[in-house]
This record gives sequence, C-alpha cells and structure tokens, in this order.
Amino acid sequence: MRIDVVSIFPEYLAALDLSLIGKARRQGLLELSVADLREYTTDRHRTVDDTPYGGGAGMVMKPEPWAQALEDVLARGPAAEGQRPVLVVPSPAGEVFTQAVARELAGREHLVFACGRYEGIDERVVDWARERFEVRPTSLGDYVLNGGEVAVLAMVEAIGRLVPGVIGNPESLVEESHADGLLEYPVYTKPAVWRDRPVPEVLLSGHHGRVARWRRDLQLRRTAARRPDLVAALDPAALDRADRAVLAAEGWEVAGDRLVRAQPSPPVA
Amino acid sequence: MRIDVVSIFPEYLAALDLSLIGKARRQGLLELSVADLREYTTDRHRTVDDTPYGGGAGMVMKPEPWAQALEDVLARGPAAEGQRPVLVVPSPAGEVFTQAVARELAGREHLVFACGRYEGIDERVVDWARERFEVRPTSLGDYVLNGGEVAVLAMVEAIGRLVPGVIGNPESLVEESHADGLLEYPVYTKPAVWRDRPVPEVLLSGHHGRVARWRRDLQLRRTAARRPDLVAALDPAALDRADRAVLAAEGWEVAGDRLVRAQPSPPVA
Repeated sequence: MRIDVVSIFPEYLAALDLSLIGKARRQGLLELSVADLREYTTDRHRTVDDTPYGGGAGMVMKPEPWAQALEDVLARGPAAEGQRPVLVVPSPAGEVFTQAVARELAGREHLVFACGRYEGIDERVVDWARERFEVRPTSLGDYVLNGGEVAVLAMVEAIGRLVPGVIGNPESLVEESHADGLLEYPVYTKPAVWRDRPVPEVLLSGHHGRVARWRRDLQLRRTAARRPDLVAALDPAALDRADRAVLAAEGWEVAGDRLVRAQPSPPVA
Repeated sequence: MRIDVVSIFPEYLAALDLSLIGKARRQGLLELSVADLREYTTDRHRTVDDTPYGGGAGMVMKPEPWAQALEDVLARGPAAEGQRPVLVVPSPAGEVFTQAVARELAGREHLVFACGRYEGIDERVVDWARERFEVRPTSLGDYVLNGGEVAVLAMVEAIGRLVPGVIGNPESLVEESHADGLLEYPVYTKPAVWRDRPVPEVLLSGHHGRVARWRRDLQLRRTAARRPDLVAALDPAALDRADRAVLAAEGWEVAGDRLVRAQPSPPVA
C-alpha cells in the first residue's frame, strides 16, 4: 500500500517511523511519504493561507498550493489500474471514522491524506479533487483538533495495522474490540495476587467454557454501562439465552429485531 | 494545567513539542512531562508485559510498574486542593471522547494519561487507581489503535487548545464545529475565481445577513447528509423557521421536542 500525506507540519508525522507502522515501512509493507505543502507555494513568504470570503474568524488555506501538491502526488503514485486513489481530508465536518472505514481503506492501493489547518482548505479544492480522487472528508470524532496531522497519525495507525503482514499475530485482530460490536473484557496477568488484589478466580480455573462465558458477561455489562448506543445496534439473533439474561439485568429487552430499554415496572401501589 | 503521560514509547509524544501545544508549554500555560514506564521495572529485561490469565492472544501489561509510575506522578504533582487528579486511560472500551469531555478536562488542574499497549493494562491497576485518581477509561472513537499514544496526542491537542491563552483568538473557539451541534460550513479564500471555479457569489455580496443565512443553510444540509445522528440530537427550540424549512427539504420534521425523519408520503394511487 502507498500512503502520501501533505501537511505544513511534516515533522508531526515523525511518529510514523516508530513501532509497528515504522517496522512495516522498513519491511516494505507500507510505502509512506510526507510532503511539505509549503514546497508548493511560489511567493517569498511561502504563504499557504488568506482571509475568508464572507468574513469570520481565522484563516483559510489557499487552493493553488493544494492543487499543485496533489498533482505531484498523483504523478508519483502507483499506475492507476481502474481504481482512483482515495483522498482523505480529516475534518470535524466529515463522516465518522470507524473500524469499518479502517478495514475498507486497508484494502486500497493508494491513500492520500490532506492535513488542513486554520479554518480549513478552500472548498474548491475538494470539488477539483473529486475529478481525480475518491474524496472522503473524514472525522476522527466529535472534538476539535488544531489540524489534521494528529487525525492522520491515528487513521494511518488504525488502517496500517490491518494491512496483511503488519501485525505478527493475526489472532489479535479477530479477538479485538468492536469485532463483535461489544467492548473488550478486562484482562489480567501475573501475579495471581497483587497488592492484596486477587485475579478473578474463574481465570485460574482452566475451564475454557466458564472463562469464555465470564468474559462475555463482562463485555455485555461493560457495553451496557458505557455504550448504550452499541447495545441498541446489536442483532438479537446473535445473542444466546445467557447473553439476553445479562442484558435483561442491565435493563434491555428484545423487541422484534432489536434491543430496547425495558420499560420501568409501574410503582407498587 | 499539569499533564503527565506514562508510556513505553515516550518518543511518540514528541509531537507535543510542536505547534500550538509546544508554544503553550514554552509559555508556561501547560506543564507537560512524559515518563517512560520501563524506568519503573526492576528486572534486567525491563519487562512490562506477561501472558493473560484465562488464555487468549496477546500480552497484558503487568500491574506493578504502572502502580510505581503512577505513585511517582502523584508525588511530583501539584499539591492536591480537594480535587483528585484525573487518570485518563485511552481504551476502545472506554466512554467516548467528545468536545464536551475536552471542555470538562480543560478545566482540571492535573491530568494523567496512561498509554496501554498490547491487550491492555491489568485491570487491578484501574481498581487500585480509583482510590487515588478520578479514573476515566476513554475511547478516541470506534476504531482500534496499536496503543494509547496517538489517542493521547489527539486528546491533549483537543483539551490543550481550550486552556485559556493557548489560542490567540478566542473567537475561533466560539465559531467552531460542534459548538452549535452542526457541522462547519465550507470556507473560501482568494482568488475569487480559481481554475475556472468562482467563489459562491453571496460571499462577495458584503451582506452579512445573507452570508450568515447561506452558511447556516449549508451547515444544516451538510449535517443532514453526513451526520443524521447530530440532526436527531438537535433541540427544535433552537431552530428558526428557515432552519426548519431547510431540514424539511432534507426529510426531517419536528415531532414534539425532537426532530424525526419525515414519513414518506403514501404513493399516489
């Protein structure tokens, strides 16, 4: 997979040399390059921004340096084989980045990330880019960052680890959070008693079935406590009797093809 | 504000020296320090992980080095004045990080971030920490990262920029995305015509009321197209007649105190 990042703070992306993603680059599993947007300016001050039309606080990124940088990325990219490169534009106004989006992008040949700063990039760049890329304005979450760089670090990490070969033990990918729509169960390691706190006994039992059930119960309870939105999105057909009993104790019941919060019982007269 | 980060990859946090957050640190608005978890191990190999009790793929972070590191952070932290420090544990199993969480944490004296790796930190560390910190397992979003480091970069950026004085122009904070529950409007700057693409005429009109209305319409339309969940969360009382008309055209109608998708009209017989 080839990844290009365009930013006015290329040094922000240095973390992509570290850890699993850095290793994947050295192994040739990921080809990643970071371009400095200011290299594509033509004035002495290397200006990338200007005031917004229509007024308002902050500055807007000028369109021409972006078009020049993206044309250069296209020229240096892998020969297109029917598939246009994906241009990811991190923006709080984009669609939400999820594990499903990460999986989809992990299957693409060429990803380009455009790191906006200030109030964002002149919107005409997006219109122009749609003729050359599959453009995806994408939000890391419902919070505001200073620019797209940190969002790109997170997205590249989430996508890169799904590229075959990047993670040594593919089992880790199957078991992990969100694969089954539930939050992860708590984990424990040695010692069996630490600072007077014992590991839950069932984990020492050696009984695989009981361990699996205990973990599943905790996943269900934790998800009900922290993420009711995920419970509401579960498919009841994927839940067994024990699952339903745990969720019922947390106040959820099956209504047709989905889970809803149980109506509170009427007060005793 | 004081921020402590504990990680086995302290070099990952180098990006916090850059840009606005780096500047805020140099100005003394943020006091930030990053500790290497391996400094708190006692064996020759500086081991931080071990196999999970109960079986399963991957490794779990041992409890003792974490307790040592966190005790050290507490000892070096600001004198507690009735308020316990917040311990943020980035985890896909946590509550979702949002702008509201960022605002809340921006008002705290002392934030500590514990970057888990592998399958996570021994759960007993969380139980132990609850006696000393306000513990918040927090998820950056519904995707899986290799560790907590990138999540901490994003959270510290989102929180740090809300600390008074960090952003020069506080107007930028008022106008920005999610403040009104809607996605941002598109922005434009010079030139007025770029590569045959003109700026929308209304932005050149100098008519503030029309510009504001145009921007608001685009916010509403964009939110309806990309984030129906945000439309469903809007308070109809905060919408004027024009807002409602725009949303109606996108298929939403007011039902009591919330917005719902309009029922499709029955087919003409």
